[in-house]
Parts: sequence; C-alpha cells; structure tokens
Amino acid sequence: MKVSELGEFKLIDLLAEMVSEDQDSDIASWQRLLTGIGEDVAAWSGDPGIQLATVDSFIQDVHFSLDIASWEDIGWRVMAANLSDIAAMGGYPRYALVSLAIPGYTEVADVALLYKGITALARQNDMVIAGGDTNKSPIVAINITVLGSAGRDRFILTRSTARPGELVAVTGDLGSSAAGLKILTKQRKVATNAGSDLIAAFLRPNPRLHEGRLLLDHGVRTAIDISDGLISDLKRICEASRVGARIMIDQVPVNKSVEAIFGEGSMNLALSGGEDFELLFTGDLPTIERVSELLPCKVTVIGEILTAEVGEVTIINNQGNPSYLEEVGWDHFRQS
Amino acid sequence: MKVSELGEFKLIDLLAEMVSEDQDSDIASWQRLLTGIGEDVAAWSGDPGIQLATVDSFIQDVHFSLDIASWEDIGWRVMAANLSDIAAMGGYPRYALVSLAIPGYTEVADVALLYKGITALARQNDMVIAGGDTNKSPIVAINITVLGSAGRDRFILTRSTARPGELVAVTGDLGSSAAGLKILTKQRKVATNAGSDLIAAFLRPNPRLHEGRLLLDHGVRTAIDISDGLISDLKRICEASRVGARIMIDQVPVNKSVEAIFGEGSMNLALSGGEDFELLFTGDLPTIERVSELLPCKVTVIGEILTAEVGEVTIINNQGNPSYLEEVGWDHFRQS
Repeated sequence: MKVSELGEFKLIDLLAEMVSEDQDSDIASWQRLLTGIGEDVAAWSGDPGIQLATVDSFIQDVHFSLDIASWEDIGWRVMAANLSDIAAMGGYPRYALVSLAIPGYTEVADVALLYKGITALARQNDMVIAGGDTNKSPIVAINITVLGSAGRDRFILTRSTARPGELVAVTGDLGSSAAGLKILTKQRKVATNAGSDLIAAFLRPNPRLHEGRLLLDHGVRTAIDISDGLISDLKRICEASRVGARIMIDQVPVNKSVEAIFGEGSMNLALSGGEDFELLFTGDLPTIERVSELLPCKVTVIGEILTAEVGEVTIINNQGNPSYLEEVGWDHFRQS
Repeated sequence: MKVSELGEFKLIDLLAEMVSEDQDSDIASWQRLLTGIGEDVAAWSGDPGIQLATVDSFIQDVHFSLDIASWEDIGWRVMAANLSDIAAMGGYPRYALVSLAIPGYTEVADVALLYKGITALARQNDMVIAGGDTNKSPIVAINITVLGSAGRDRFILTRSTARPGELVAVTGDLGSSAAGLKILTKQRKVATNAGSDLIAAFLRPNPRLHEGRLLLDHGVRTAIDISDGLISDLKRICEASRVGARIMIDQVPVNKSVEAIFGEGSMNLALSGGEDFELLFTGDLPTIERVSELLPCKVTVIGEILTAEVGEVTIINNQGNPSYLEEVGWDHFRQS
C-alpha cells in the first residue's frame, strides 16, 4: 500500500505503534516522557545538567540514493550521523524527533523499514522516539533531531579548547566509509564479496558514543567527529580553538581493506573521505596515554596542535617534509 | 550572489553572524547557552522542569509557494507554526535549530530574508537560534525544531484530559488564514486592498504563547492549537481524551472580513480552513469564565464535551438540529 492510500494520520498511527512496540519501558527516557508520539510536542521531565540538541537532514540524491542503500540502511545512517555528533560531545542521547518528507507514492512498507533502521540504533542507546511529523514532498527528506544530556560534572567535549603542544589522536581506522561508497557506486570495481566490510562501514556506521563519554570522563576536553573528513574536521577544531595543527601522514591509520583495494588512493580516502564517524581529539601526553588504554578501540596519535596561523593544518611525511593532498573536505553546495 | 558561489561554510558563517547580531544578550536562554551556532550540537544548562521539543517541516510547493509568499514571510510562518505548538502546551520556547535544504542557485540574500523572518519571531519571544544545518536540495525544505520548557508547577496543557460536561472554547476569530490563502491564490477575486487583514493572517500568524500560559496558569488542562481546522483538531482532543463533542455552529466566531468577502462559504473556512493558530480548549464553566476575563483576546464558548462515541464531533444549529459540512480537516497526503 502506498502512503497516499493510507493517509497521513493512519501513517502516524502506524509509526507510533512501531515505535512503542519496539520500546523498552524500563529505560529512564521512557519513564520521564510525558507525551505520546501522536502529540505535536514531546514533553519530558528535565534535569539540571547540560542539555544537548542536534539536527541532521538527509536529502534524497544529495546525501543518499535508494539505488545503493535500502530504506533500513538510510534510517540507520541518518540516526548514526546525529548520534555521532552527540558522541563528539561526550553526551548521552535521550530522545529523537523524526521528521519525514516523502512522496505520496512511497510504499508504507518502505517507511516502516526506514523507521526500523532508525529505531534499531535508538534502542541500542536507550533512546525514545518522542515525536516528529510526516509530510508530502516530491523527494524524500529525512530530518532527525536528537535531544540528549551531557556526561557528569557538567562538562562537554567541544572543538574550541585545543591548546598548542597537545597531541592530536583519532579512534579506529579511516577511509572505510568513503571506500565503501566508491565500491557501491561502482567507481571502483572489486571481486564479488570483496570490500563488504567497507560497504558495511558506509551503510551502517557505528557512532562512538561510549568512547566519547570515556574521553570526557578521563580528561579530554576537545573532540569532533569525523564527518566531513579528517583534515576538514581538524581545521574546524583549529579554527574554533584559534590554533594550527600538523599531521604526520605516515601515522594516519588507514583501514587495511582500503589499502588493499585502493592502494595509493587509500590515503586520500583516509584524509578527506569523511563519514568515518571516528572521534578526533586532542590532549596532553598523559591524557592520551590514559584514554588509549581505557578505550575499547584503537587510538592513534597522528599529530600535534601548534601556534601556527589559525586554522592552518600542515601535513608532513616521516622525513618531516610537507606532503600534499588532492582535495580536502566536503562542501555540500560546491561538490556533488 | 548564489549559495553555490558562497559555499556551505561561508553561508553558515553569514547566518551565524546574522543570528548573533540580532541577539539580545540579556535574555536567559542566551546566558544559559554553552555553544555557538557553528557547532554541530547546541548545549545549554538545563533545568529540572518539563522540557519540550517540537519540529515542523515546510516543503516548497506543498506547504508554501514562493509565488505568493516572500522568503521573510515563509521564515515567519514556519517559526509561527512551531511556536503555536508550544503555545498549546502553555510552554515557553527557548531555543530553535534551523535546518535548511536549498538549491545551490538560491540567492544568499533570500536565505538572509528567510532567516530575518525566523529571527523576528524568535526575538519577540526571547529565544535563541542555537544551531541547525544547511544542505543542498532540489527543492526548498525548511525544518525548525523548537526546544522549550513548561510553565510553572510542572504542568502542561495536553489534548488527552477533556472530560464530559466541560465546555469547549476558542480564542480569537476563525477562517481568516484560509480566506487569506484563497485571496492570495486568486481562488477568490476581491477589490484591490480588500482582504489585506486576511492575507496578513495567512502570511504572518501570531502564535498565542501568552494566552496558552495564562490558560495553564488559571486551571485549564486541555488545549490544542488550530492548525488543521477547528473540527479536525477538536476530533484530536476527543480521540486523545476518549470522549465526543458537540459544536453549536451559530456560536463559532467567524472572522468578520471573511464573512463580508466569502458570505455563505465563510463558515466552512472557519470550521475546516486550518492554520488560524488559535487555541481550542476545554474546561468547566468557572474556569472558562475566569480565563475569558483574563485573556487579552476574545474567548468564545462554542460547544461541549460529551460521552458520545470516541472522537465523534457533531455540529448542531440553534434549533438543535444536526448541521453538515462539505469537508473536514486536512490530510497532507490525500489532499493537495
């Protein structure tokens, strides 16, 4: 059945039912919620700590294509992008508002799959889908707002607190998401089944929520998630903190499968591919050593913060010589 | 200059500058805010009262048309729709996240005008634009999330608390917004300058925030804002409260200009036109009498809550006989 046949109100009823069936009523966010998903406003009992709110939009054929991702994948990815922003602050996601714009000819079953992807990640993180809206639109646009609260001690990780002399470190490996996209879109041909881990990295990224909170709890003050690309996101830290930075290109942890498939092109994917949703953070040596031991994932020191020109990120090789890049970052309006 | 020429990051910088220039730094929401608009997540010091969050999407050629509304009008309208939802809970809006999806060929000056409309209403209500995002899109889609907090005593107005025997009342007059739209789209031809108040009601609605808080403070427990239409929104109260209702059609406060221009058709606009953003509420007689005196606007009793079939709204004339309607409500997917 198509959305236009079911009608807006019945669609909302159906989604509300999906959400509540899927809900673990033991979790705190559910118990504090005062309204149902059918209300225009979500209301919950607040707490005096730091409140967080973030929004991400995914537009059809700009941020995603139904040719290469399932509805369920897309739901997961939008939610993951939002949660990664909360992770980069060391916060706890609590509620989500899901705003869907869809053509009337969309299959109701597909909308349900989209919701399934969204709620899977919500449930993993003890969150509640507390509201949203659905609207008719010529193209699919998904807009998710995540409301959260900060870790203990009223602190958050920000991008404006990096200081000269601090080390720059990153969780996990880089380049896999961009590599997965290239394989999915056949820009890179591979043997059947090769690169399935990279495709999964693109379609089902896992935001580093636990890691972000550990960073905050153990002395890190500065972090960002890698959504636009390592260099681009490091520039943002540098601009916000009024510092510069230097990256040692030979230390950058390029994903092994990406290296195997993309060879020389793999470094570019790691530096500017984006959407790895790893955490990029800074700290003094003892702090970085401490969190390297505590975090359940790999942590790699890749550079340092300098008193250079504000926002300047230089890249050096292991001879200490400057190294260059084909492209850095991602601009939604300038690139496609 | 076009958005594609300026680029995403410079556009965000420009909007951030507009927002902060426009900001009254004395207001509490600003002082509690911990982040700038350039961050991916807005963070602020919370409070232990009830927290509110609501989202509204406006899609080009579904919810608005640039043929009949200016960019500034559109910004105002999206914000007003959101604030009306907060008004219907008796809440205080505090922060907004603005998510814009726009084609690259959009003029930067037009985006600035859109923001001007949004920030005008934010400033009127001591709110802060605390974040958002901008994205490339084939059509314009504006998504605003408003975060707020509830009135005193940890209560909110809801739609699920109406009880049989209570009166149904409404603020202001009805039908003006739908009438304004018909005039703007030339579905109704009028003499030059006639209906300008109706056009203003459509383009620049004023959410009843102050009135909603007064209702809550003086004993009303049940309210909804009229966004889909009087009958449609009353049905929502009835469904959520597991009751029915009866409307006395001769008591419905039809706007005088609408009556003058639309004659017999005016009642239909008042009952099902929608987007008047008036408050529809219920209460016992002493409560309704009290708030009628206190509210700065007209309050009209139009019916009562019954133990009828759940969700059933009947309409009677002043002889007590049933009266019928051409259409009720609005379904984004079924109607155009």
